[in-house]
Amino acid sequence: MELGMIGLGRMGGNMVQRLLEAGHRVVAYDTNPDAVTAYQAMGAQGASSLQDLVGMLAPPRPVWLMLPQGQPTEDTMQLLAPLLNSGDVILDGGNANYKDTLRRAGELGSKGIDLVDVGTSGGIWGLAEGYTLMVGGRKEVFQRLEPIFQSLAPGADRGYSHIGPVGAGHFVKMVHNGVEYALMEAYAEGFEILAAKEEFDLDLPSIANTWRHGSVVRSWLLDLVVSALEDDPSLSDLEAYVEDSGEGRWTVQESVDLAVPAPVITLSLLQRFRSRQAQPFGAKLLAALRNQFGGHPVRRTNNGDG
Amino acid sequence: MELGMIGLGRMGGNMVQRLLEAGHRVVAYDTNPDAVTAYQAMGAQGASSLQDLVGMLAPPRPVWLMLPQGQPTEDTMQLLAPLLNSGDVILDGGNANYKDTLRRAGELGSKGIDLVDVGTSGGIWGLAEGYTLMVGGRKEVFQRLEPIFQSLAPGADRGYSHIGPVGAGHFVKMVHNGVEYALMEAYAEGFEILAAKEEFDLDLPSIANTWRHGSVVRSWLLDLVVSALEDDPSLSDLEAYVEDSGEGRWTVQESVDLAVPAPVITLSLLQRFRSRQAQPFGAKLLAALRNQFGGHPVRRTNNGDG
Repeated sequence: MELGMIGLGRMGGNMVQRLLEAGHRVVAYDTNPDAVTAYQAMGAQGASSLQDLVGMLAPPRPVWLMLPQGQPTEDTMQLLAPLLNSGDVILDGGNANYKDTLRRAGELGSKGIDLVDVGTSGGIWGLAEGYTLMVGGRKEVFQRLEPIFQSLAPGADRGYSHIGPVGAGHFVKMVHNGVEYALMEAYAEGFEILAAKEEFDLDLPSIANTWRHGSVVRSWLLDLVVSALEDDPSLSDLEAYVEDSGEGRWTVQESVDLAVPAPVITLSLLQRFRSRQAQPFGAKLLAALRNQFGGHPVRRTNNGDG
Repeated sequence: MELGMIGLGRMGGNMVQRLLEAGHRVVAYDTNPDAVTAYQAMGAQGASSLQDLVGMLAPPRPVWLMLPQGQPTEDTMQLLAPLLNSGDVILDGGNANYKDTLRRAGELGSKGIDLVDVGTSGGIWGLAEGYTLMVGGRKEVFQRLEPIFQSLAPGADRGYSHIGPVGAGHFVKMVHNGVEYALMEAYAEGFEILAAKEEFDLDLPSIANTWRHGSVVRSWLLDLVVSALEDDPSLSDLEAYVEDSGEGRWTVQESVDLAVPAPVITLSLLQRFRSRQAQPFGAKLLAALRNQFGGHPVRRTNNGDG
């Protein structure tokens, strides 16, 4: 098949490569012309603008957006929509909030343009191993574009599916990432306990590697734990600072909206927030209160004591 | 090699079978004579008592206990120790608390008997796929018995390791199970959110199966989620009642002793406790307090209203 790819970052670029290797015709565009040139060299058709990209595709056009969620996706979709015709399809492979996806589907639908939301997992390993694709949208559009999904997935018969109507793909990907937060936190806490048990002088990379074979906790994330610990068993090079990129927050917000308790996913998100606070005000207040009622000693900063 | 196996339940019995298939001589004993007869039919030497088992093994004897943790393991070890000689080895493959293991190692050591603690994971799938073995004890004993571990593990080169001194095997297995609690809770919460999102009418078995291929959350536990949901997508046959069997509690107690926060593992344990309470007193008190200060309506039971 042929499709346009907008956004040639880590994810989008690797997807272009995987699609080219499967024999598809890919028209590639990025705001950075160097990225376009690089994928041209691999066999993609390079486009110099959104208009150029649209002109290089025959209707009905599938145009895949692989952009950071939020404003970059919003802006590009606003610019792209007027260039497309009824029957064309925009696929959003980013991590959009499904409520934005529903709104955008309504706007695009009024022009006869289909929006297909493709929740995509696999990270930088997807190039080699394939991507999990959770596809929302009209079933007939899904079926028409199935060769694309088959080439991006780990196999033509697995790792992708039509999840439901538009919005469902991003919704399921959001929950997927919420689960991911809690799985990561589970390993993190376990290995922190192991690391703290000095009397046994445990070899963490060896333990993680042993768990990979036959144990109940084996997983792809555990494989990455092994990889990280083998690089640096004490993780001494890293700051204990953990970012988040939205999907965890949305999952927690959704659990509140649905009144479905998700305490461990929620707490995993909060642990990330806590990791970024060198001197949390709340902990200071706890120390102050212990001092107030019991005269317990507090530790003082050196601020302004010069 | 040859070894004695005491306890022919699901785990011990399957291990005997795996050892026999690998060509080891196994002397098998269980308090239930029918179990002994069954494994005799597979090629094990059947023992009629602990004394009989010890007599059928040549010193230095390795005797593997695969018994429920707590009193059954304690009692058997107390009965077995006087029958053994200096140089013999007791291997405990159950989920003992590592503090019990350290105490027992001291008692047995005074008689010249080695205790080797083998944290064992793999459940009923271990027969086919092999068991992860986390082995604590003296290194030279570990090395002498390595052919046994190699036959039980998923492969002769993986899935087992000498974790550290005696106690370390059960310690690491305990933390392994703590991690397991939180991994399970992560999936449980995610799928509960998906199930609650009625507007998308999501096909949970299909989603779980899609995630198995290429996604960041793929794992052996996710494979089991697929299996459980394919059997019954709504899990309508099950009560929402979750047991625990000790290791989660010990992990939480250890995190408290070490003052290493393990909030998500802890909360995963507490969720299991909550699952067993049809009418928690705490929730009643919350309802009562809302009624006290705000006159908010409460729901009344029909107890004694007849």
